[in-house]
Amino acid sequence: LFTFLNDKEKMTDNGMMSRAKVLTIDNMNPTVKKVEYAVRGPIVQRAVELERELSEGMKKPFAEVIKANIGDAHAMGQQPITFFRQVLALCSYPELLSDSTFPEDAKSRACRILQSCGGFSMGSYSASQGIDSVRQDVAQYIQRRDGGVPCDPDNIYLTTGASDGIVTMLKLLVCGEGTSRAGVMISIPQYPLYSAALAELGAVQINYYLNEEACWSLDIPELQRAVNEARRYCNPRALCIINPGNPTGQVQSRQCIEDVIRFAAKERLFLMADEVYQDNVYADGCQFHSFKKVLFEMGPEYSETVELASFHSTSKCYMGECGFRGGYMEIINMDDDVKAQLTKLVSVRLCPPVPGQALMDLVVNPPQPGEPSYNNFIKERTATLSALAEKAKLTEQVLNTVEGISCNPVQGAMYSFPRITIPEKAVQEAAEKGQAPDMFYCMKMLEETGICLVPGSGFGQKDGTYHFRMTILPPKDKLQILLNNVKEFHQRFTLQYS
Amino acid sequence: LFTFLNDKEKMTDNGMMSRAKVLTIDNMNPTVKKVEYAVRGPIVQRAVELERELSEGMKKPFAEVIKANIGDAHAMGQQPITFFRQVLALCSYPELLSDSTFPEDAKSRACRILQSCGGFSMGSYSASQGIDSVRQDVAQYIQRRDGGVPCDPDNIYLTTGASDGIVTMLKLLVCGEGTSRAGVMISIPQYPLYSAALAELGAVQINYYLNEEACWSLDIPELQRAVNEARRYCNPRALCIINPGNPTGQVQSRQCIEDVIRFAAKERLFLMADEVYQDNVYADGCQFHSFKKVLFEMGPEYSETVELASFHSTSKCYMGECGFRGGYMEIINMDDDVKAQLTKLVSVRLCPPVPGQALMDLVVNPPQPGEPSYNNFIKERTATLSALAEKAKLTEQVLNTVEGISCNPVQGAMYSFPRITIPEKAVQEAAEKGQAPDMFYCMKMLEETGICLVPGSGFGQKDGTYHFRMTILPPKDKLQILLNNVKEFHQRFTLQYS
Repeated sequence: LFTFLNDKEKMTDNGMMSRAKVLTIDNMNPTVKKVEYAVRGPIVQRAVELERELSEGMKKPFAEVIKANIGDAHAMGQQPITFFRQVLALCSYPELLSDSTFPEDAKSRACRILQSCGGFSMGSYSASQGIDSVRQDVAQYIQRRDGGVPCDPDNIYLTTGASDGIVTMLKLLVCGEGTSRAGVMISIPQYPLYSAALAELGAVQINYYLNEEACWSLDIPELQRAVNEARRYCNPRALCIINPGNPTGQVQSRQCIEDVIRFAAKERLFLMADEVYQDNVYADGCQFHSFKKVLFEMGPEYSETVELASFHSTSKCYMGECGFRGGYMEIINMDDDVKAQLTKLVSVRLCPPVPGQALMDLVVNPPQPGEPSYNNFIKERTATLSALAEKAKLTEQVLNTVEGISCNPVQGAMYSFPRITIPEKAVQEAAEKGQAPDMFYCMKMLEETGICLVPGSGFGQKDGTYHFRMTILPPKDKLQILLNNVKEFHQRFTLQYS
Repeated sequence: LFTFLNDKEKMTDNGMMSRAKVLTIDNMNPTVKKVEYAVRGPIVQRAVELERELSEGMKKPFAEVIKANIGDAHAMGQQPITFFRQVLALCSYPELLSDSTFPEDAKSRACRILQSCGGFSMGSYSASQGIDSVRQDVAQYIQRRDGGVPCDPDNIYLTTGASDGIVTMLKLLVCGEGTSRAGVMISIPQYPLYSAALAELGAVQINYYLNEEACWSLDIPELQRAVNEARRYCNPRALCIINPGNPTGQVQSRQCIEDVIRFAAKERLFLMADEVYQDNVYADGCQFHSFKKVLFEMGPEYSETVELASFHSTSKCYMGECGFRGGYMEIINMDDDVKAQLTKLVSVRLCPPVPGQALMDLVVNPPQPGEPSYNNFIKERTATLSALAEKAKLTEQVLNTVEGISCNPVQGAMYSFPRITIPEKAVQEAAEKGQAPDMFYCMKMLEETGICLVPGSGFGQKDGTYHFRMTILPPKDKLQILLNNVKEFHQRFTLQYS
């Protein structure tokens, strides 16, 4: 039996010859290994395990796991908009068009969508750029939102959630080697899709730090510092902004946006504006301003030159329809030849999911005054947004009562990103375990309370500072309990390690 | 007004200063430029233009454009399975669960799916690998299909159509530079997703040619030739097979699959089996054999070592639900560390579209004997598959009556890929236009008849041979007319250029 084995073969315990794997951790794509995505990282895997252990009857110091790690509104009990779901049901099963219990406006929306689908079916491929009529509705929505600034449906690309659009745009921008390698500026803290995509694409991540002391504001001198330093080792090509902010919840002022646009023009950067939280603005005196609108108000010197891609999605705002993976991007001032390449590139994946396109259409073209579903739509939308505003306030208030936790106002989006003080002894214990101090903190909180948060280190933060990201999505009574549990945990933790 | 302009600025006609673009065709990602995707290429763009021109009242030598370029079943009039759409409507709008017109089995399927969704809503994110219960159902389906060969739900990844899974797997395999650059073997003719993905990822495309003279069979000596030659300039890592074949419509014999597996084992190649047409088998004596099943029948020497990823989708077979972008992949013998990287990688995009996951669940868990929807499901499925079988036969028969066209039997899938003779004079005229001869031929056919096909050059073919891909999907009466028009066009074309 014993023979000479080559280096790709080895004997197993039971004497069978086993081949070494073709694909191993050592010879797989190295850029994939560099990808990190904390929002679904080790802490979430542990949360899933804990849920299973609970369901198997294991005793824990808590009755349920609360996942406040991800902006997953429906999972936290937020109700879908009735009208949206009625239209989706009609589009899925057009037999229902003759059902008299469905309102007429839902039926007419469904018919319009289906008439734009091959064979009157959501099962047909759409154009790769998205269904024509949906892109027209998106363009009209943007035009209304931006006070009449024109929008060309030809500049709209429907996407598989905003993530898909963002990655596609980054893909176009990547180029070069060594000091000419493309660099992309992202805020720190950031949403880790950006760092993950840049790692995978082999582009250089250029960090600019938001100013925590001034409510996570974006300061132009810091952008300037970051780009100047980066020019020594790479080719900065794009500037990404998330407004309202994720994970930091700030809402940018109109002035700030104007300054950012001037900066991008001066430094010749392609602007990427992630505006998926555009309806999630809660704080008094704050208002959402789209980059597109501000750009066009700055006159032709900017509106005819600055290259901009902006992103929206069905997943956030009052909709919270993450599972449908709907979204769009609008591109402004893109070179025609590059645009042709973009159109070609998206065609390889055939088309974004059609139900997500249909849903995007409903978001940009909801019931209008006078239509049968209008009042109920407004009622549902208002209820969701008011509840979120209340929970944003509550979160900030309760967290700021805790010594060692300090929380900026949650002006918008769906998250608080409080700073936490971690005692030196805990920092040391974390180091011994090879964990980031805030990962150690969050893991301990999960094990003791069942609350699943994401450590600040997953989003980036200034050295020596620690944070966590917590969604404001749980229902108010649950959120209240959750915040109290966080408070008690923090006090216990601080005591234990002091 | 006149000032010194730097090289990034120029004067426009109206005297305004215009900035050069940040992102241009010259400085964009070079790998994206290399991507080609003929199925939605220039010929389809022209078809869309022609449709618009027709709708604007322009006179054409045809009344409608017939898109036989893409496997888009519903767009060609194929009806969705009633049961699937009922469940999707119930999942979209759970109020309907109390509607007595829906059958009980549809309601119970919808409940099972919704119970696996956060907050009982398809609007919640699922696990990145896909909904647990759906993956369990997929595993049971595979086990039934493969005569009891075990399948672990943990090896199932739900995907955004099969394309998504294929690209993700290729992503893991890419590595190296120069002569160590990863190479991937693909059939010629191929489905151009493969060449597009390899171009974008910067991997080496290794062509192996199918044997047109033997009904597009896959010959091991040709695989051997291809891998031997490739080893001189790259690192061959994976072998992709499409069975039943796209665009060539062949169905592989069990023996051939076994030989391919032995070859992959010997040459240390990761196997990728694209099996999205697994229900589309029409020819007498042909049968679908999954790579998984054959692998396990070959005993532990193979079943415990050969690394395999196989792909399925909701888009083809009797379902034809392309727009929902549902799919799954099963991975076998993947290294545990690599698998962890795969799971991390898919988490960045959060999750596949949940409606597509729900649909995938219905495909793998359709109505069972005794359930109220069973008879109708079987009736609908049989009708669709029988019609396809009839149209496969018809296509082959009619095309083979034309001098200068020769068509292999359409044993499976949804396409014929006939060889066409193009007269020398036409080849010359195409060359003058800078077009591939079969692109010239297909463009002319489109302009004269309104029939949209894809030239063989978009899939790859042996030098000096010409083909087109045509779907067999139009309704039978329309297909008959279409085939006659192709016949007449070919005769006219031949005469014109002789």
